[in-house]
Amino acid sequence: MTKISIVGLGLMGTALAETLIKAGHEVTVWNRTDRKAEPLVALGATRAADVAEAVRPGSLVIVCVLDYATVHDVLRQASLEGTTVVNLTSGRPAEARRTAEWVRERGGEYLDGGVMAVPQMIGGPGALILYSGSQEVFDRHRAELGALAEARYVGADAGLAPLLDMAMLTGMYGQIAGATQAMALVRSAGLPVSDFTTTLLLPWLRAMGELLPGWAAEIDDRRWETDMSNLGVNDAVLEGIAVAMREQGVETNLLTPLQQIVAKRIADGHAGHGLQSLIEEVHPDLHRS
Amino acid sequence: MTKISIVGLGLMGTALAETLIKAGHEVTVWNRTDRKAEPLVALGATRAADVAEAVRPGSLVIVCVLDYATVHDVLRQASLEGTTVVNLTSGRPAEARRTAEWVRERGGEYLDGGVMAVPQMIGGPGALILYSGSQEVFDRHRAELGALAEARYVGADAGLAPLLDMAMLTGMYGQIAGATQAMALVRSAGLPVSDFTTTLLLPWLRAMGELLPGWAAEIDDRRWETDMSNLGVNDAVLEGIAVAMREQGVETNLLTPLQQIVAKRIADGHAGHGLQSLIEEVHPDLHRS
Repeated sequence: MTKISIVGLGLMGTALAETLIKAGHEVTVWNRTDRKAEPLVALGATRAADVAEAVRPGSLVIVCVLDYATVHDVLRQASLEGTTVVNLTSGRPAEARRTAEWVRERGGEYLDGGVMAVPQMIGGPGALILYSGSQEVFDRHRAELGALAEARYVGADAGLAPLLDMAMLTGMYGQIAGATQAMALVRSAGLPVSDFTTTLLLPWLRAMGELLPGWAAEIDDRRWETDMSNLGVNDAVLEGIAVAMREQGVETNLLTPLQQIVAKRIADGHAGHGLQSLIEEVHPDLHRS
Repeated sequence: MTKISIVGLGLMGTALAETLIKAGHEVTVWNRTDRKAEPLVALGATRAADVAEAVRPGSLVIVCVLDYATVHDVLRQASLEGTTVVNLTSGRPAEARRTAEWVRERGGEYLDGGVMAVPQMIGGPGALILYSGSQEVFDRHRAELGALAEARYVGADAGLAPLLDMAMLTGMYGQIAGATQAMALVRSAGLPVSDFTTTLLLPWLRAMGELLPGWAAEIDDRRWETDMSNLGVNDAVLEGIAVAMREQGVETNLLTPLQQIVAKRIADGHAGHGLQSLIEEVHPDLHRS
């Protein structure tokens, strides 16, 4: 089996190490504080005395620390010549691109990853890790990476995995904001939110989610017309909801920016366009206009 | 079959009338402008010369007009004594409650409805209409209402159907805002959004949506702790996303209010709480605190 080093033993690093040990790999672990390595050593891991002992030529080094500044601080303590670095630390596209460059300058190969899972999900069904950077590294270590989660390679630009990771999280935060605002309205009527969420909200969000691929195709084609409710209709609905929320003593804060960009599109003469056209307010497609 | 009158022949009213005619009911239609009745008359509907001809004792009157002010303007033109009014006009809880009272004072029975479907879906699978108000009316006309869409009775307070309707729409708008913001980030990298939406975003939103019933149960129990990422962690992630968006030239407007309420909870000493606790910023549970 491959010799794998795990650098950083937070909740996620620990889950990654455990999963690889159980899959039969020879795992070396390193963490800034020693204590976190103990349960993994009990499972069969080797504890590295320092970073240089974990990061050796020919080793696959999986890094999962607090942020990219820490990635640099830690990896600076070893030679990267002949190493393969898979960086699963959360960060921004620009940071991933800089780090890819930095590792390559020091003679290492680099793959960046965006972990779409909580630690409890690692090694189980439903976990997904996006990878970008060196396709050679991805192909060579597909088995090991596949033991952690569904492994998907998204492109040679190392910034792509964090970009798509952040985009997915952004979508999730919107869903959470909407659900929170929805539950607040239900709670304002003195009703429990469990039954509403399970029997009404979630099936509805699933059904409405099915519209998104069609909207995405329209966005790629720059088609802003709609045969569903247009911005004018949605503006009236959003205003009705905002008034109802005030009548019910509910804050409208999470919904306000959407209402504002709908109003702006209408003021610009686009009341007949569909909701998919709102992307032009968030990221105008300047190249094609 | 039941004699049913449809008052208001917009896209939705027309779809309702068509579905009931095809189901074999004797349907009378009325609209402010006559022209819209013609295709329905061709299908077998009777055109009422005025509102009073459509709204007669013993008839089931389904009203679907622009707003509640129009409902009152129109129904004022007839006696409501002995009539059953099912109001499917979009509006607010407070308006539904006032209208229920107003119809009952005039000797009519009242059921309010929230239509969770676009006109094209009426009579087909996936359409849902929530009803609140007179349970007797709902039970008596279950078959006719069931021909239009899945019919669900949610309570005697006539305001409940519009309230839950608006809450579901609110959840949908949040999902749309998040997806728009997510697609904008992907587009900023010069990538098409279709593949991202179909293969990454939508499966992820489905998976994350499954967390909502658990959060709802925690909200009902006022449990704000979490064994997933707490507000402190989410604050750092949201800030990273905001910085990345600025680096990519994407507006952060749709995400900002969520970031603000997360920051406020943390400033109030709740960094260890989970995202479900954000509802306290939108509708504080004053009765139980």
